[in-house]
Amino acid sequence: MEGRQVRKKAAIRKVFRGGPASQAEISFLLQDFEDAYNVGSIFRLADAVGAKLIVGTGRTPLPPDPMIGVTSLGHHRRIPFRHVAGHEEAGNALREEGWTLVAVEVAEGAIPFLEYEFPQRVCLVLGNEGAGVYGALLRQCAAAVYVPMFGKGRSMNVAMCAGIVAYRAILKESS
Amino acid sequence: MEGRQVRKKAAIRKVFRGGPASQAEISFLLQDFEDAYNVGSIFRLADAVGAKLIVGTGRTPLPPDPMIGVTSLGHHRRIPFRHVAGHEEAGNALREEGWTLVAVEVAEGAIPFLEYEFPQRVCLVLGNEGAGVYGALLRQCAAAVYVPMFGKGRSMNVAMCAGIVAYRAILKESS
Repeated sequence: MEGRQVRKKAAIRKVFRGGPASQAEISFLLQDFEDAYNVGSIFRLADAVGAKLIVGTGRTPLPPDPMIGVTSLGHHRRIPFRHVAGHEEAGNALREEGWTLVAVEVAEGAIPFLEYEFPQRVCLVLGNEGAGVYGALLRQCAAAVYVPMFGKGRSMNVAMCAGIVAYRAILKESS
Repeated sequence: MEGRQVRKKAAIRKVFRGGPASQAEISFLLQDFEDAYNVGSIFRLADAVGAKLIVGTGRTPLPPDPMIGVTSLGHHRRIPFRHVAGHEEAGNALREEGWTLVAVEVAEGAIPFLEYEFPQRVCLVLGNEGAGVYGALLRQCAAAVYVPMFGKGRSMNVAMCAGIVAYRAILKESS
């Protein structure tokens, strides 16, 4: 490498932006999240992937929340979001709006995220940090995908997991 | 979906483990990290991707550190790690050990992570949260890759970025 970083804002926006490669539309459903930092991370991710919407259900913290501001770096101000009390109700509404729900969860019949052909208008369904995606919501999902683990741990942080899967959902392979 | 989660530890370990798909070896170099939470997140990620080594340079916090324990969920105990004072020295040592260094950085000549063919023994070089990867270390890298951004923000969290790139580096395409 030449060893020169690119630090100018305009250059970064111009050169390192995603191009028209992404034709997919993406949104996120956060079901009963407990940790506002995770919510903030997902708002920051949502901006990065050009997400159209975040829906938080149940007790999921949503803006305004100082902890969300910390991890979202303010990007929560750009992403449309709404709160829906019930997770089933939220799933139904999203499907009526044309979103295909895909759970990120270790569920029966779940497939590795790389083997799944994501739909063009996908809502990633993310569950509570401990309890995961509830059955009633899983049953509304067209599929469940998981991130394979190669170590001793059985889970990843939900926001990181969302990032890994979201980039797969929006980016086409170049090969 | 059937709507049933898989919660048994043994089943999760057996069914949702990465298989022999990953032939790649991966390690991480953390150059002058400031945030112990980011370090902990990368230790947790390192376990998930079966990483062989973490090298922290300069002021990078390393275990034992209570904040690293929180975000790593204890997985730091499984990943070999070492501290090296100088980042150039660390890069040289890793290359002598057969690692190909790949920076995750918006640098001149950097390419989108999906377009890069990762080597079989790759060390992802991650820079300080604000300053990024220093020039002297970038020049030791075989390549720099970046994660395309589709929103208004110019950066992602370094740990999430590492996760997105690391899974690309270790997993082969199924298609």
